Amino acid sequence: MDSITFATDRGLDFVAIGRLCIDLNANEINRPMEETMTFTKYVGGSPANICIGMSRLGLKTDFIGKVADDQMGRFIIDYLHNNGIGTSGITTDRTGAVTGLAFTEIKSPEECSILMYRSNVADLLLAPIEVDESLLARSKVLLVSGTALAQSPSREAVLLALRYARKHGTKVIFDIDYRPYSWASLEETAIFYHLAAEKSDIIIGTREEFNMLERFDDNAEHSDEVTAAQWFDYHAELVVIKHGKDGSIAYGKDGSSQRGSIFPAKVIKTFGAGDSYAAGFIYGLMQGWDVSRSMTFGSASASIVISSHSCSDAMPTVEQVEQYMLASRKA
Amino acid sequence: MDSITFATDRGLDFVAIGRLCIDLNANEINRPMEETMTFTKYVGGSPANICIGMSRLGLKTDFIGKVADDQMGRFIIDYLHNNGIGTSGITTDRTGAVTGLAFTEIKSPEECSILMYRSNVADLLLAPIEVDESLLARSKVLLVSGTALAQSPSREAVLLALRYARKHGTKVIFDIDYRPYSWASLEETAIFYHLAAEKSDIIIGTREEFNMLERFDDNAEHSDEVTAAQWFDYHAELVVIKHGKDGSIAYGKDGSSQRGSIFPAKVIKTFGAGDSYAAGFIYGLMQGWDVSRSMTFGSASASIVISSHSCSDAMPTVEQVEQYMLASRKA
Amino acid sequence: MDSITFATDRGLDFVAIGRLCIDLNANEINRPMEETMTFTKYVGGSPANICIGMSRLGLKTDFIGKVADDQMGRFIIDYLHNNGIGTSGITTDRTGAVTGLAFTEIKSPEECSILMYRSNVADLLLAPIEVDESLLARSKVLLVSGTALAQSPSREAVLLALRYARKHGTKVIFDIDYRPYSWASLEETAIFYHLAAEKSDIIIGTREEFNMLERFDDNAEHSDEVTAAQWFDYHAELVVIKHGKDGSIAYGKDGSSQRGSIFPAKVIKTFGAGDSYAAGFIYGLMQGWDVSRSMTFGSASASIVISSHSCSDAMPTVEQVEQYMLASRKA
Amino acid sequence: MDSITFATDRGLDFVAIGRLCIDLNANEINRPMEETMTFTKYVGGSPANICIGMSRLGLKTDFIGKVADDQMGRFIIDYLHNNGIGTSGITTDRTGAVTGLAFTEIKSPEECSILMYRSNVADLLLAPIEVDESLLARSKVLLVSGTALAQSPSREAVLLALRYARKHGTKVIFDIDYRPYSWASLEETAIFYHLAAEKSDIIIGTREEFNMLERFDDNAEHSDEVTAAQWFDYHAELVVIKHGKDGSIAYGKDGSSQRGSIFPAKVIKTFGAGDSYAAGFIYGLMQGWDVSRSMTFGSASASIVISSHSCSDAMPTVEQVEQYMLASRKA
Repeated sequence: MDSITFATDRGLDFVAIGRLCIDLNANEINRPMEETMTFTKYVGGSPANICIGMSRLGLKTDFIGKVADDQMGRFIIDYLHNNGIGTSGITTDRTGAVTGLAFTEIKSPEECSILMYRSNVADLLLAPIEVDESLLARSKVLLVSGTALAQSPSREAVLLALRYARKHGTKVIFDIDYRPYSWASLEETAIFYHLAAEKSDIIIGTREEFNMLERFDDNAEHSDEVTAAQWFDYHAELVVIKHGKDGSIAYGKDGSSQRGSIFPAKVIKTFGAGDSYAAGFIYGLMQGWDVSRSMTFGSASASIVISSHSCSDAMPTVEQVEQYMLASRKA
Repeated sequence: MDSITFATDRGLDFVAIGRLCIDLNANEINRPMEETMTFTKYVGGSPANICIGMSRLGLKTDFIGKVADDQMGRFIIDYLHNNGIGTSGITTDRTGAVTGLAFTEIKSPEECSILMYRSNVADLLLAPIEVDESLLARSKVLLVSGTALAQSPSREAVLLALRYARKHGTKVIFDIDYRPYSWASLEETAIFYHLAAEKSDIIIGTREEFNMLERFDDNAEHSDEVTAAQWFDYHAELVVIKHGKDGSIAYGKDGSSQRGSIFPAKVIKTFGAGDSYAAGFIYGLMQGWDVSRSMTFGSASASIVISSHSCSDAMPTVEQVEQYMLASRKA
Repeated sequence: MDSITFATDRGLDFVAIGRLCIDLNANEINRPMEETMTFTKYVGGSPANICIGMSRLGLKTDFIGKVADDQMGRFIIDYLHNNGIGTSGITTDRTGAVTGLAFTEIKSPEECSILMYRSNVADLLLAPIEVDESLLARSKVLLVSGTALAQSPSREAVLLALRYARKHGTKVIFDIDYRPYSWASLEETAIFYHLAAEKSDIIIGTREEFNMLERFDDNAEHSDEVTAAQWFDYHAELVVIKHGKDGSIAYGKDGSSQRGSIFPAKVIKTFGAGDSYAAGFIYGLMQGWDVSRSMTFGSASASIVISSHSCSDAMPTVEQVEQYMLASRKA
Repeated sequence: MDSITFATDRGLDFVAIGRLCIDLNANEINRPMEETMTFTKYVGGSPANICIGMSRLGLKTDFIGKVADDQMGRFIIDYLHNNGIGTSGITTDRTGAVTGLAFTEIKSPEECSILMYRSNVADLLLAPIEVDESLLARSKVLLVSGTALAQSPSREAVLLALRYARKHGTKVIFDIDYRPYSWASLEETAIFYHLAAEKSDIIIGTREEFNMLERFDDNAEHSDEVTAAQWFDYHAELVVIKHGKDGSIAYGKDGSSQRGSIFPAKVIKTFGAGDSYAAGFIYGLMQGWDVSRSMTFGSASASIVISSHSCSDAMPTVEQVEQYMLASRKA
């Protein structure tokens, strides 16, 4: 796969749809959360992180989502705005919903966990009528994060955004982003992930996430090739399957495949690796780079974020990624 | 459109998925329900009626659905079985759900209404894992009734059945069958009806139902032609739009269109007209008849049912339809 | 216990609060419901039956409740009105709730069962602000049926009605009337039944119902005496414990106790026995009769109803009860 | 009112029932929360604060409640244990509920607000069967915090605890503690607060809280005397009505009344004032002090807490309160 072609007549590079949350990261780390006494607040949520990453890399971005009518919601909008992200597509809930929270626990670089607050969250209340078709018509890319499919009406809002994107030739990138909370059952997850993937041009997920999506398909041996192949009958041009420390593999509609490896890093925590990878990788594709070079850029970006305390706030600039790659090559 | 081609290597002609209910029809009619003192019990629900109609017409049929674990549920299974319909695809709820009820009120042939009991009904609890893929692989046709998309997990069960049907080359007939209860919003309805229609070979609905489905599309003038055209880009071969007393119009993928008119009838009530039309029409298509002849057969079938007290129980045999057409021509 | 004293300065004899439903009684009996094809519609629900019974016996009655905004709801109001029961305390739901249904199955006089429809029913939506304090201030008696405590806001409406009744010296009669549906747990049932009993002057229930109510009390041997004794520390003057075919026993605050026996009857079905007993018994007490005579009158009333097809519609007049007692004595 | 008599044969002084939460207090204060970047974690919730206060004052205490099965829940149990509070009455939720959170915003000492997370919280899942009767039988006092009445099954657990306390002669102190979230309606609040107050020996609340409780009573002018008087017909010995900066007034069953005033303080935030007042006041009563002296001790205790960053952690010892009163008198 040489490269992906994006629309050229668009005022926006990138629009993400979905979760806008707050991360509360432990200040005192390498211990159980019971012993952590103070937390620092960051904007979080996978599509928010990726969008912040894209903006940090210099692209023109916007966001479709919903925030709570409280201090956390206003902080999120302020932060996005201050980071150059358009917020015209973000609505504010008026039903008393809250902002999703993720308290991070870092017992050791290998032992990280998250304590989630996802009951009655504003982001899952995004409604179809709140999806601005014109924003999607003006953007080169729509990024869909799978978690936004977990509940109604956010689920329907995403399904409608997918229809609008296809109608306007906006490239759809689907980041599976599976989180067990919010979903009613594994069957439901499989069915809606499948529907979203059917309408996507680029699909990114871990091997485990693709297994989930294939629950009702025939791929008992969890073959990457079988996984990738089925999507080319729909709209996919590129399917990226991530294997953690073993790197990732990208399959193209043309039959090509590329392996990507990871960069060494002084890991503080593993959170945010996938989001910064996605930001770097998509940035590369949108520069017209080939898949292989884009994967490398994504990996370097990921390594920077896992060496930092936050996810969103640590998203690197192009210069930082290039410097990191240079330094790694020398080491 | 000359005719539709169905798979020939199948043991079953027809499988319907969705609602299995009880109709409680007023015995004393032409008065408000307040004054009706006794009711007669029938099997009801649009896909059940159509399936009973298909069986009455001599086809080999089966049903995918869920019934309550009570006397009403057992009555439904017994009735289907006694009418030659396979019931292996019907599961029984174990959570205490009830059977949906429809009390009919017949104030006059023109003024009919229904009082529905649809809270906590068993039919909407059909789960994806209860959808028997082999049944769909063995059938020529899958009939989907839109009401089954109204709530989870029945919604996901239908979405999965659609996937299985497409996988196995089973012809999908989508009867929109819009009922306002059960749905959370008009937007949600539009989105899921659209998803089902995208995967269907034949789509049948009233003009009002297509308007609902097109809520997020560009067809402000509600043009039948515009409506039909959009589906041929997906999988549709035939789109039938019904205009009540003004008959119906069928558009083929080949650009053809056919108008169908209605037969005169001594109307007792209007309930069941759509279901008996669908049964007769699909029967015709499956005989290899052209669209026009099939529409005529459907119309005659509808006229028989609206002249009777029940819906399901009044579904005619081939002989009865032929006789009715003959008698009408003479009159 | 000689007799109970009621307020004398009241314009109303009796107000009931709670369930207003529809019974659909099998017309073809002595068979399973699967084989019953037609049903007859009656007003039902324990407090409705008792109130109809009281009105049939000549008392001035009113009702506090809520009906659905449909044909069934209007039928109920019409029926009560036509039977001389005040309906000013009955409100109409506007949220789309339905009327509770009870399909009766009569396999044999000994094998009767009920198929209930109790999801989203209007009667459980009665709200505290809809409880008319002046109605309670004008009545000699408030009858509370336990089922109305099963869910909010009906639960709170009943708790408020109890407060108003105590405030105005209106005699509270609590008919436990336990029905397993609607309640979240046995513990919840026990707690709210206890709260209602604490505020009641007369408590009526079966031995099994009192066991339920005593779940957190010390009466492991289910002694009737222990049961009765605890309520005299609150407001009770009379506690009636029913033992089915073995008759009932009434304990007075003064230490007295009376046994009541049942009358012979040509039983069609057992439904309605408790309600007609309650109507007859309360009628007797309100005539100033002693407990024993009142129990006898209640038993005769019960025997009449179980010999009939309906519950509410079969409630006897004073003359019918007296005639029945006379005939029984001769036999 | 000279003094209140408590049982003398008890192994425990004080058991509280209800909310166990986490406070996340802004580290950077005197600004809107949008600009607060770090938060410090404390145990919170009104009954938890009071119980910690009582333990700090040297009493033998225990707690009946429920915590989430997560790091926050374990932190709460550890903290209580380390502060000498018995935790045998605290159960752990196994349904995936979370710990309630309260983010505090301190714009200025006068402008404080709280952002609550109360959806799906473990504390409201305390069930009746989890209320240990023997703990209540062994304690001199049961403290009920009104918020625990907001939802089932915690509501029923509290109603049962009240019954057990009355049965065993355990003094019931009801702190109204009204919080608008969690409750379905003002009517529901009024009804359950009334039921709890009916069973209480000492009732404490602000004027606004008593207004809420009296929604269905006759006290249009919100008279403190009328408020207090109605409870002496039930079980109350003492009713304390708080008027914020204007101090409080306590009415005794004997007709006496006492006014209490507040101590000067260098206020950081107003949170926790009521809880520390309650702890100091109840402590005084349990020492056999008269009402007036107890109120003074409570006021001093409150002033200490509002001069500190936290609520629970700032609860003073007897020595600290005495020193504070001494210093205030000199100033």
